[in-house]
Amino acid sequence: MANRTSPKDLAASLTELWSPKVIAEIDDSYVKVAKVHGELAWHSHDHEDELFFVLKGRLRIEMESGSVDLREGELYVVPKGILHNPVADEECHLMLIERKATLHTGSTVTDRTRSLEEQLDRFESERGNGR
Amino acid sequence: MANRTSPKDLAASLTELWSPKVIAEIDDSYVKVAKVHGELAWHSHDHEDELFFVLKGRLRIEMESGSVDLREGELYVVPKGILHNPVADEECHLMLIERKATLHTGSTVTDRTRSLEEQLDRFESERGNGR
Repeated sequence: MANRTSPKDLAASLTELWSPKVIAEIDDSYVKVAKVHGELAWHSHDHEDELFFVLKGRLRIEMESGSVDLREGELYVVPKGILHNPVADEECHLMLIERKATLHTGSTVTDRTRSLEEQLDRFESERGNGR
Repeated sequence: MANRTSPKDLAASLTELWSPKVIAEIDDSYVKVAKVHGELAWHSHDHEDELFFVLKGRLRIEMESGSVDLREGELYVVPKGILHNPVADEECHLMLIERKATLHTGSTVTDRTRSLEEQLDRFESERGNGR
């Protein structure tokens, strides 16, 4: 039987920064991995919480009320509606869990914003049901 | 700012086997940690998927169609409605993500079944709003 997944290995295999890929789904949420370095963009998700889990390196989540520094193996849930900006001073590998409806950078659109279709590319091809 | 969490450290600190504790919430789901050894019970969740992530050790998830062996850092989502039985031949530490409505052992009740209230004990006391 297959479909067991190593988020750490999948994140390490990514070639593009700030481009999350869906690796699994659980009910109405997606599990994603991402490789990041630098900063994304200030944004919020009005209706969805977002879980960050650091697989490798460190991540700083800047928020208006202060920052949270996450080390490898640590998780933090950014509550819905909270403006945040993920920053990685060095390369960092992440696992993310968020609702399927969640937009990458909320209502903010930047060069780094990735569509859900782009985030699903890998997932679809791994399941062999390419579109 | 606080509330960053190390699932690995929290799982290691548990003293009771097969007694998941809620460590975070994301929308209508809970993130839990558990320390397990031996086997739980065959059960299913009719309406909810269940995510298993191995923080330490190994876990075998037995299903009618076969088993999935998970090593440290690997995850697997048991789809809703699938009969499964988690088995750990040696002590294993897990992170679980499941809907708030999910019952520990589905409609099966055993000595090991834990109520949601029992699973929330730690979470509530950490937030300082003990009941």
